[in-house]
Amino acid sequence: MSLKKIISLCEKQGFFKKLSVSYDETSDFIHHLKLGPVGAMFQENLRNEWLQNIVIGSKNFNVFLSGPSFVDTFEYAKQMSSERAPFAIAEFLKKETHRSESNIIINNSNEQNDFRNVLLNYGNMETIFRITTFLTKSDAIPFFHKWQRQRKIWWRKISASPGRYNLTDIQENENGRQSVEIKSDFPWGSQVVESMSIYTCEHNRLQPHHLQLKEGRKKISPHFIVSNINLSSMILNFICDAYEEPPYHEGVRPMMRIHRKLAPYKVAFTLSTNAGVMNNLNDLALYLCKQFRNECISTLLTLNAPKVTQEVQWQQYDQMGIPYTVVLNDNTLRNGIAHLRSRDTTLKEQVHISTMLTYLQQIFKNY
Amino acid sequence: MSLKKIISLCEKQGFFKKLSVSYDETSDFIHHLKLGPVGAMFQENLRNEWLQNIVIGSKNFNVFLSGPSFVDTFEYAKQMSSERAPFAIAEFLKKETHRSESNIIINNSNEQNDFRNVLLNYGNMETIFRITTFLTKSDAIPFFHKWQRQRKIWWRKISASPGRYNLTDIQENENGRQSVEIKSDFPWGSQVVESMSIYTCEHNRLQPHHLQLKEGRKKISPHFIVSNINLSSMILNFICDAYEEPPYHEGVRPMMRIHRKLAPYKVAFTLSTNAGVMNNLNDLALYLCKQFRNECISTLLTLNAPKVTQEVQWQQYDQMGIPYTVVLNDNTLRNGIAHLRSRDTTLKEQVHISTMLTYLQQIFKNY
Repeated sequence: MSLKKIISLCEKQGFFKKLSVSYDETSDFIHHLKLGPVGAMFQENLRNEWLQNIVIGSKNFNVFLSGPSFVDTFEYAKQMSSERAPFAIAEFLKKETHRSESNIIINNSNEQNDFRNVLLNYGNMETIFRITTFLTKSDAIPFFHKWQRQRKIWWRKISASPGRYNLTDIQENENGRQSVEIKSDFPWGSQVVESMSIYTCEHNRLQPHHLQLKEGRKKISPHFIVSNINLSSMILNFICDAYEEPPYHEGVRPMMRIHRKLAPYKVAFTLSTNAGVMNNLNDLALYLCKQFRNECISTLLTLNAPKVTQEVQWQQYDQMGIPYTVVLNDNTLRNGIAHLRSRDTTLKEQVHISTMLTYLQQIFKNY
Repeated sequence: MSLKKIISLCEKQGFFKKLSVSYDETSDFIHHLKLGPVGAMFQENLRNEWLQNIVIGSKNFNVFLSGPSFVDTFEYAKQMSSERAPFAIAEFLKKETHRSESNIIINNSNEQNDFRNVLLNYGNMETIFRITTFLTKSDAIPFFHKWQRQRKIWWRKISASPGRYNLTDIQENENGRQSVEIKSDFPWGSQVVESMSIYTCEHNRLQPHHLQLKEGRKKISPHFIVSNINLSSMILNFICDAYEEPPYHEGVRPMMRIHRKLAPYKVAFTLSTNAGVMNNLNDLALYLCKQFRNECISTLLTLNAPKVTQEVQWQQYDQMGIPYTVVLNDNTLRNGIAHLRSRDTTLKEQVHISTMLTYLQQIFKNY
């Protein structure tokens, strides 16, 4: 399992499109990639998962989604919170990047195979998912510890191998600022996926007179915790996280075990290739597909079954990370029973087509 | 009801932040605005509604979400569709804008009050939600008519006054290209919210040899239908669409009747102001808030009830477009019964706190 292999599989399945490969002075390869349509949907799902969990799902205090101006958002949040901590501000922050230059320098180290060897091209922009939580002095340190645990749990929850994610030790810089990172372990080394720091003094975008809250009747300067996720690292992380090669028959079965909440497509179809009933099966697949999509279950529809076997189609769906395939055949037309094939186990269970929708809804509701 | 009045209400409630007001040579005012935190969440909900409905919810064929390259996405979509129409490509298209210049020229017309008098600032970029559907020649015209109806229904479905949305007559330009627009009617005139055109010839981003599909065994050049929504017009439209001034007591009650699927916050709380039980009520509100947020119901939490009456808080929530407020008081602590106040009717129904979550989930599930 190497990064190169994962990327070439993902290219085949529409996650990425390769722009070019370059070599730096240590002859490490650097892949320049763009998101493909499957990758674009994967990105939307990641963005949505973060928004639902961190912004809308924040349990104990309000998280405000920032408009283009952080300062205005802070003022609004302060007013809505009666000038009292805690509250937080979430941002989809766009920054100009000069990664390709710095990249080549970093590659002088001896790591052979790393996210740094992959450049996801967003036209020289990178996106940071940032959350800044404002707290009173006494709440800050306990919350920082709680936040670290919560964040680790989030990464683990939507991962194919949760054990991969770990917190680093707390680093203290010369100003006494504490930082900690969440890293995910891969055969080629650990990758930073999120970094968190606690600040006790000035904010680079807020004037000191803005950054004042109340505690009881006193005026205080809040402490704040900043948490950063780089979108392109997040995408690469969950792609590599999902890649597996379980043994299958004589060989292996390369597949993307993407968490069902993140999977670009949740369901696909395969139809038996008996030509006589093909039109009826097509109609049935279309009927089920409409039902699923009506409930916002992202479904890949491939009608007019191509001239390949079901095995070959399953292989493709497994590599696209589609968790379930509805298998329809002659018998389904007679007795209404379809098979639901699981990507992870390759096992098929019998489900009546009238209960297929509710059964799938139940599966996709939970983590 | 004027655009100016709506904007100043929205400014107060965190939808927008005013940057400046300028006047053009006809002394029309031009508002320069930025999205505020409530507006940012509103934008997310619009984006999500479009994505769920148009991309994931497309009933009869696959819609592929485009990565940064439209051409690559087309190639992928073509391959996944065995080179056969219909299929579609959805894009969040970012374009440089020079609206502020063109704006001033347009304003020489005599319209006093128009979206053209409002500039939503995204740092000189505008976002277009575009969908391009590829069809065989024989399917193109019937689908174009069906698509128009579907799109009109979509706008009506998430609107506060569905009758506002209408299709214009089909326009034919000199090349024989047919176009149609969806307009929404306001006191100051109609605004274009979506435009749709059917193309029979070249695509500006696809080479003729790319733009070839199969029909039976023949090679064909597909026709295609392009549908465009400008994000900033969509936001302004649904803001103005939602603004109402129903009579209330002696005067009126200005409010934002935002559709519940789009509302930035779905639920808020007000607590009775009896100081003795305030801590208990705070705890109860926090408990319910956690329940709601755990199910991704966006909830505004305002604890330590400020020194204003419930009436004043309701007024604020109505103006923020929050559809429901959970009202907790001394009695709730004794018998578990809370009141659920509706923004639209101002009526309160009794709901037991143990069933509040399921009751709200039921409400927000449907359109």
